Amino acid sequence: MGDILGRSLRLISFGESHGTLVGAVIEGIPAGLSITEEDVQKILDLRRPGQSEYTTQRRERDRVEIVSGVFHGHTTGAPLTMIVRNEDVVSSYYEEYRRRPRPGHADYIARLKYKGFNDYRGGGRFSGRITVSMCMAGAVAMKLLRTLKVEIIAYSLEIGGERARGFTLEEARAYRYSNPLRAPNEESYLRMSKVIEEAKAEGDSVGGIVEAIALNVPPGLGDPIFDTIEGDVSKAMFSIPAVKGVEFGSGFKAARMRGSEHNDPLVIRNGKISYLKNDHGGVIGGITTGEPVIVRVAFKPTASISKPQRTVDLDEMREVEIRVKGRHDPCIVPRAVVVVESMLAFVLADHAIRAGFIPRVLG
Amino acid sequence: MGDILGRSLRLISFGESHGTLVGAVIEGIPAGLSITEEDVQKILDLRRPGQSEYTTQRRERDRVEIVSGVFHGHTTGAPLTMIVRNEDVVSSYYEEYRRRPRPGHADYIARLKYKGFNDYRGGGRFSGRITVSMCMAGAVAMKLLRTLKVEIIAYSLEIGGERARGFTLEEARAYRYSNPLRAPNEESYLRMSKVIEEAKAEGDSVGGIVEAIALNVPPGLGDPIFDTIEGDVSKAMFSIPAVKGVEFGSGFKAARMRGSEHNDPLVIRNGKISYLKNDHGGVIGGITTGEPVIVRVAFKPTASISKPQRTVDLDEMREVEIRVKGRHDPCIVPRAVVVVESMLAFVLADHAIRAGFIPRVLG
Amino acid sequence: MGDILGRSLRLISFGESHGTLVGAVIEGIPAGLSITEEDVQKILDLRRPGQSEYTTQRRERDRVEIVSGVFHGHTTGAPLTMIVRNEDVVSSYYEEYRRRPRPGHADYIARLKYKGFNDYRGGGRFSGRITVSMCMAGAVAMKLLRTLKVEIIAYSLEIGGERARGFTLEEARAYRYSNPLRAPNEESYLRMSKVIEEAKAEGDSVGGIVEAIALNVPPGLGDPIFDTIEGDVSKAMFSIPAVKGVEFGSGFKAARMRGSEHNDPLVIRNGKISYLKNDHGGVIGGITTGEPVIVRVAFKPTASISKPQRTVDLDEMREVEIRVKGRHDPCIVPRAVVVVESMLAFVLADHAIRAGFIPRVLG
Amino acid sequence: MGDILGRSLRLISFGESHGTLVGAVIEGIPAGLSITEEDVQKILDLRRPGQSEYTTQRRERDRVEIVSGVFHGHTTGAPLTMIVRNEDVVSSYYEEYRRRPRPGHADYIARLKYKGFNDYRGGGRFSGRITVSMCMAGAVAMKLLRTLKVEIIAYSLEIGGERARGFTLEEARAYRYSNPLRAPNEESYLRMSKVIEEAKAEGDSVGGIVEAIALNVPPGLGDPIFDTIEGDVSKAMFSIPAVKGVEFGSGFKAARMRGSEHNDPLVIRNGKISYLKNDHGGVIGGITTGEPVIVRVAFKPTASISKPQRTVDLDEMREVEIRVKGRHDPCIVPRAVVVVESMLAFVLADHAIRAGFIPRVLG
Repeated sequence: MGDILGRSLRLISFGESHGTLVGAVIEGIPAGLSITEEDVQKILDLRRPGQSEYTTQRRERDRVEIVSGVFHGHTTGAPLTMIVRNEDVVSSYYEEYRRRPRPGHADYIARLKYKGFNDYRGGGRFSGRITVSMCMAGAVAMKLLRTLKVEIIAYSLEIGGERARGFTLEEARAYRYSNPLRAPNEESYLRMSKVIEEAKAEGDSVGGIVEAIALNVPPGLGDPIFDTIEGDVSKAMFSIPAVKGVEFGSGFKAARMRGSEHNDPLVIRNGKISYLKNDHGGVIGGITTGEPVIVRVAFKPTASISKPQRTVDLDEMREVEIRVKGRHDPCIVPRAVVVVESMLAFVLADHAIRAGFIPRVLG
Repeated sequence: MGDILGRSLRLISFGESHGTLVGAVIEGIPAGLSITEEDVQKILDLRRPGQSEYTTQRRERDRVEIVSGVFHGHTTGAPLTMIVRNEDVVSSYYEEYRRRPRPGHADYIARLKYKGFNDYRGGGRFSGRITVSMCMAGAVAMKLLRTLKVEIIAYSLEIGGERARGFTLEEARAYRYSNPLRAPNEESYLRMSKVIEEAKAEGDSVGGIVEAIALNVPPGLGDPIFDTIEGDVSKAMFSIPAVKGVEFGSGFKAARMRGSEHNDPLVIRNGKISYLKNDHGGVIGGITTGEPVIVRVAFKPTASISKPQRTVDLDEMREVEIRVKGRHDPCIVPRAVVVVESMLAFVLADHAIRAGFIPRVLG
Repeated sequence: MGDILGRSLRLISFGESHGTLVGAVIEGIPAGLSITEEDVQKILDLRRPGQSEYTTQRRERDRVEIVSGVFHGHTTGAPLTMIVRNEDVVSSYYEEYRRRPRPGHADYIARLKYKGFNDYRGGGRFSGRITVSMCMAGAVAMKLLRTLKVEIIAYSLEIGGERARGFTLEEARAYRYSNPLRAPNEESYLRMSKVIEEAKAEGDSVGGIVEAIALNVPPGLGDPIFDTIEGDVSKAMFSIPAVKGVEFGSGFKAARMRGSEHNDPLVIRNGKISYLKNDHGGVIGGITTGEPVIVRVAFKPTASISKPQRTVDLDEMREVEIRVKGRHDPCIVPRAVVVVESMLAFVLADHAIRAGFIPRVLG
Repeated sequence: MGDILGRSLRLISFGESHGTLVGAVIEGIPAGLSITEEDVQKILDLRRPGQSEYTTQRRERDRVEIVSGVFHGHTTGAPLTMIVRNEDVVSSYYEEYRRRPRPGHADYIARLKYKGFNDYRGGGRFSGRITVSMCMAGAVAMKLLRTLKVEIIAYSLEIGGERARGFTLEEARAYRYSNPLRAPNEESYLRMSKVIEEAKAEGDSVGGIVEAIALNVPPGLGDPIFDTIEGDVSKAMFSIPAVKGVEFGSGFKAARMRGSEHNDPLVIRNGKISYLKNDHGGVIGGITTGEPVIVRVAFKPTASISKPQRTVDLDEMREVEIRVKGRHDPCIVPRAVVVVESMLAFVLADHAIRAGFIPRVLG
């Protein structure tokens, strides 16, 4: 329940971490959009594990198959369905975690909620692997947004307390996907990689912050109540495992600003009305203003750590110590970057359709 | 568009700041809930303006009328409709703001989006006055939650950079609504009132953070994807004007923690499984754990300030200076406390119905 | 629960037969539509009781008030709310019906479902009076459709077994609302009035069929699965009390036709592709074809009759005889004509917005 | 767009007639329901083509694969996804039909609506093959309903004007799926088969009516407005290709009855309140009464006939004659019986969940 996101463009996510596959149906997709498996694969490849020493060693090709809704290389207007088969699955540990829930994971609460019927292998529906369905949807949404010239640039703004600095948007655009940590520039990358290595060496993990910036978003997307851009984006973001906070523009910092400092004056630039600065983060009153949409998403440190932790043996009802085995990212943030980008793209595409900026049939 | 929130329990908000009224329909409300206008009035009174020197001097009684869905003092299962008439309305300034949009407000973007058809008086649908519909819904949701013994305690955690400290939950519960700033204890209240007074004296405004804590929430509300508790709560929160960020539990601080530090170990307390601490904020994997749900909501400083600001005259297409007139809160946070409480209550009640914790007919 | 209809344009119905009022919120309404209370009143007046000897003598002015969403005579894009206050209410009989449910009414099942919490006065939410909210929505939908030149013509096709015949669409358009039975021509009117009078004299009632025809509907509205035009129209129609069947084009007669007889050949008329005939009723594969949309709606005879009937005394649990008092229509069909028209208009308007034929801001 | 049905239980249909596969996602499915591929296969086998001389000779095994949402033989609460691969596909004719649309099919209107981007092979999304997704959903819904002891019996009530008669419900239950026409008794079967053979011999087709009866439906499902049982069932039925009408209980016949004749008196039977007869068809005021739910669905004759028909060549814009090739059912009704049963089951299961009769976790 709850596996459908969006209103005019709807994403249905299905599949489990260690089941047959992970899939996505995109319903309400306009007809006539050019889309290929390569388009989607490119995005999936950006989240794939096993790409560097900083991510889990689970090796999967994650090959997308488009199984409905595309004909002669274009969307048909019918539901677009994509699947990725699960391959390199090792489920042996999970019998133990079902009995001895891992701290920071949903093992215990899932067993309670579903009275034990949930597929607990690999975390089931609670696994980061479900973000595969988000990325597939994001790939399609990005192609839709490209018809409006919208571009989204996301990167690791902070990892393990190391905040990126001294970079321009141009640098971030060029550099972020060429380094395994999705840092926006090399200096940040070096600092971030050091802090991850330290945590990893201690059998520990770190968290961080992803920042995403959407450029050329047409003004007028969103509604004041309840379907605000911020509300719909944040709802999408909190579906990504490990997210603990979402903010826009000045975000939490706004709480400490004066009105005279925070308010963004309107000005005329090149004969067009614009904003002098962008503390509002591209959205006022729930509606895009035409300025870049800026969102930051906070991720907690990876829950799976090899350090011993306290937990409860549910069968014996006694406190025990657990060591989480398996292959896990010491930091989830780098792989989450493209997921954040995807979810932002999806919500903006949904709103662009609702508001009539993207027609029901393209071309 | 977008004026409906929720799935099993749905809130429809209608009305404008300076129109005839502000109203709320609650659809999907279980039958048999005892509810009176006094129950709703109590909540409305907590957000009413004109209560102290710290809030706008607009004077309205904000008397709620229940006009459908209640019979013999109980809900009938039919849509519950509540209205509050607008009274002390002064619309004269708004012709100017329509032409010369106020920085920090949606004046400009609303005019653009709706091609000038929007009711701009008092900000129309973008006004904080629309939170009246949220409070009415919250009052009903709180009564629903009371059947589960859920209690929500919200307060001003931070105003103008002054963070509350040294208070217990007990103190906050007792003190928050007895002081105009909704501070959790007197020491914080004094610091906060000082910073507001300073800003006010300078014709400026300050922002802040509301913290809300829900106690006795049954474990098992929410879904991993997409209808997470965090996602649905944050969507509701971003509908409150001036919100820039939402976080749960450790929130953005989690980004700087180690996994070994952040993970909440499971323990046995009084023969029941529990968590040693609550960095997760009562939600893991989108699902409530039974620990208190903790959410923090960041508000920007009030956009309306009397200090002169730069803006554009849209008719003459030239930059001008504007001084915002009218009666405005130097800080919106105190009045937002009960709104945050209301929205949290509404989302939890919706999920409690979905998950079967609240039946379709009570009693 | 269930009081919201539509997807891009949503109607929320609220209010009860003998409560304070009956109301409608229209959410998702495009901005810039010219609408006045007179526009809505005209439609309401066509369903108002007390207009002839053939309808209930309950006398209500049914004055509509637009209380939100309209500014300077145009929709603003915000929820459009309309209310009609209940006036000539006599609730005294209903205590008896609650105890001794009237056959053909929902008295018994409503009491069971809501465990007695339902507002039973006047039938509450089950009353034909709730169609006031449908007509208000219909009035707005018709204005929306007028921007596409869509016109809907509905009339009583059959009453008490007397089927209208020998009329043209032109005659029906001119005559239907000038006679109290909404017959399409005078000859039919005379036959229908006779059969109603006979039933009335015997303390009995009759049913009938409403036919509605929508002209100039743009081709391409609707979807093959599941949001077909027929499906969405029929769902709306079955919300009108007393409806037992809905059919399109050849309808149930199609079941007895040969394919060679039923299939509508495509032809070229005036250089445009068209259909030789319209057995398909303007919809194929769930999608409008550009031919007139033809729907027929079957109404059972009015449940309230003065003849004695068998029922059960629920308190004493014994079979008793009941005579239904109060003021009731011997045939509901005439007053249902404008309701059918309204619901057809609403669904077509919703689909016209979804499909992009009506923009989000008009003018 | 529009490919999602239901509210608490949601069916997402995807796939095309001649694409890779046809699939269904069921979202909101309670956890703990025992379900196997065999359960679903049994229902699919009842609609499979190539089973008799009365149906198309397209030969497909239609093997269902459950690819998500089931673990250890039970639903997990996560989306349940099922697919059936398309096998015996011959798409060669459809290039011609795209250019020369077949009367009675959506060929022309689909091309127009989707500007030619639709997958026209085999009719794409407009094909009867899409009912595979409905049957898969129906199989799951039937298992859900079995927990309430609900049983649905559907059969061909009428084919080519030959109406079944002289049968009891017991006979229908036993006989319907043992004869290729789904007739309720042998005498009807013989008459129906004769009329189909005659039509087939002439290269023509016939229509008919399916009747479905749901037994043991708990009283209290459905809402008065707008989510009536009749409305939601009819919406589902009109998604089945070729449906032209839907009626409940006395249906269109009610239009010719007197109130005294139609009203179903309440009586006491075995100490329980019941209805003397069931002209209301198990639903009053949109809500189930506990009596059998009776629905009849009218199907037009199969559009594909080998007789020559008039149409238009869209490329040359001239009228032409077409002969529809391919393998088609001379009557679609027999294969539609299990589809009607499936859709009725799905809607009742959705409402049973909404109303709390089926819990979120079974067992």
